[in-house]
Amino acid sequence: MAEPFRYETRIRFVDTDASGRIHYTSLFKFFEAAETELFREFDISYTRGTFNFPRVHAECDIQLPLLHDDLIEIEVCLTKLGRSSMRFEFKAIKGGLVAATGAVIMVCMDRKSQRAIPIPDELRARFAEILIEA
Amino acid sequence: MAEPFRYETRIRFVDTDASGRIHYTSLFKFFEAAETELFREFDISYTRGTFNFPRVHAECDIQLPLLHDDLIEIEVCLTKLGRSSMRFEFKAIKGGLVAATGAVIMVCMDRKSQRAIPIPDELRARFAEILIEA
Amino acid sequence: MAEPFRYETRIRFVDTDASGRIHYTSLFKFFEAAETELFREFDISYTRGTFNFPRVHAECDIQLPLLHDDLIEIEVCLTKLGRSSMRFEFKAIKGGLVAATGAVIMVCMDRKSQRAIPIPDELRARFAEILIEA
Amino acid sequence: MAEPFRYETRIRFVDTDASGRIHYTSLFKFFEAAETELFREFDISYTRGTFNFPRVHAECDIQLPLLHDDLIEIEVCLTKLGRSSMRFEFKAIKGGLVAATGAVIMVCMDRKSQRAIPIPDELRARFAEILIEA
Repeated sequence: MAEPFRYETRIRFVDTDASGRIHYTSLFKFFEAAETELFREFDISYTRGTFNFPRVHAECDIQLPLLHDDLIEIEVCLTKLGRSSMRFEFKAIKGGLVAATGAVIMVCMDRKSQRAIPIPDELRARFAEILIEA
Repeated sequence: MAEPFRYETRIRFVDTDASGRIHYTSLFKFFEAAETELFREFDISYTRGTFNFPRVHAECDIQLPLLHDDLIEIEVCLTKLGRSSMRFEFKAIKGGLVAATGAVIMVCMDRKSQRAIPIPDELRARFAEILIEA
Repeated sequence: MAEPFRYETRIRFVDTDASGRIHYTSLFKFFEAAETELFREFDISYTRGTFNFPRVHAECDIQLPLLHDDLIEIEVCLTKLGRSSMRFEFKAIKGGLVAATGAVIMVCMDRKSQRAIPIPDELRARFAEILIEA
Repeated sequence: MAEPFRYETRIRFVDTDASGRIHYTSLFKFFEAAETELFREFDISYTRGTFNFPRVHAECDIQLPLLHDDLIEIEVCLTKLGRSSMRFEFKAIKGGLVAATGAVIMVCMDRKSQRAIPIPDELRARFAEILIEA
């Protein structure tokens, strides 16, 4: 992948709180939507297998306030592809400025045993195509 | 049931929006929590059968503003017990005043066929115990 | 307005619940986003005045299940323009079928007095342009 | 403060997603509720001053699945009290086991200038009472 994938969205009224700004949990929702759109763009699907990818870590840092109806771009990159885990990094960009950054780590888990398993080879090859190592 | 069941809760910061008040979708979340607590109180469970109860209708009317950290009581009653459907009615009470009212209708649906079925007799008998007809 | 405004969106993972379907509160969030986009399309703004438009009623009826990643269109119409209040009606359309319908009523409220006031004439004229009476 | 404050709550249906587990963003909502209850317990209030405390960082790590209706305790500690910032740490405990951990950092910000300012002395003294340094 030549450069990070970007997904454009709007801050909705329901995403705000009484501070007048976005509630930070909505940032994570936008990160998740961007991840879904990244997978769609590259036609990567993993929801029908015998495994899934629960999130084991999530983080965000907020630099600038985001307000109702702000138009933002979420930039998303797969930055680490481990044996069982993947790390995705995110930027929320508003008017050319980074308003927030974040990351999630997800682990390939066997649905039955509920244990971490290596990412299946075929799927790993697909993820490798979108890897952008730091 | 002699009188309506009441569930006490707080409006959380995440429930508010940039108007400084509760976002009305959070009212429905509180209604749902009250319904769960009503079922717990009467030891009614239906989550492990071959059917479930999707909601087919929801409504609310807002009379008074609800703010962050307001302590409210949600009053919940089963007011109609049909062949396949049930109607629950709700009041959100703040300082003795009704701040909002609402209702949901749920239908007994066979998980496999995804069609409405009569509420099983044993379960209907349990629901009948908590019915408060208008 | 010749015909209802339509806003396209996706059901996100966070919008689902353990039933595997959308949680109905997320329908209201999509209705709200559609309303915002309708106002943008017609360049109607009312957020900086001495009044606002709190919602006093909301309702929805669900006909078909909506699932993660479903592409839906939200159709939104202003169907009643009263002295102080407005009614917006919504349809959530999936693959050409109506999956859900809904409505919200909002009231023009003076920010200071927190009382209903007539919709200001200039704004009313703008709303009248998008009115589609049943 | 002799020991961490604990706030008990339930995982609600709306907190789950189509994986059948809690959506991780709901963990942050529970962390926030626990923080509010901690402040209530110690009668600390800061919402009416000329400053507020926006969050600049949030993180969580998930160890065990949390399901609908699970009863959990959120343990919350103030673990760092800087000149302008504070770090709160959280554990979500289910049946005696740590299901998730997390942290948020908030910064004292002047409402007008939107810049970080030192935490006012009187308020700092109150926070110091609940500080549990690692």
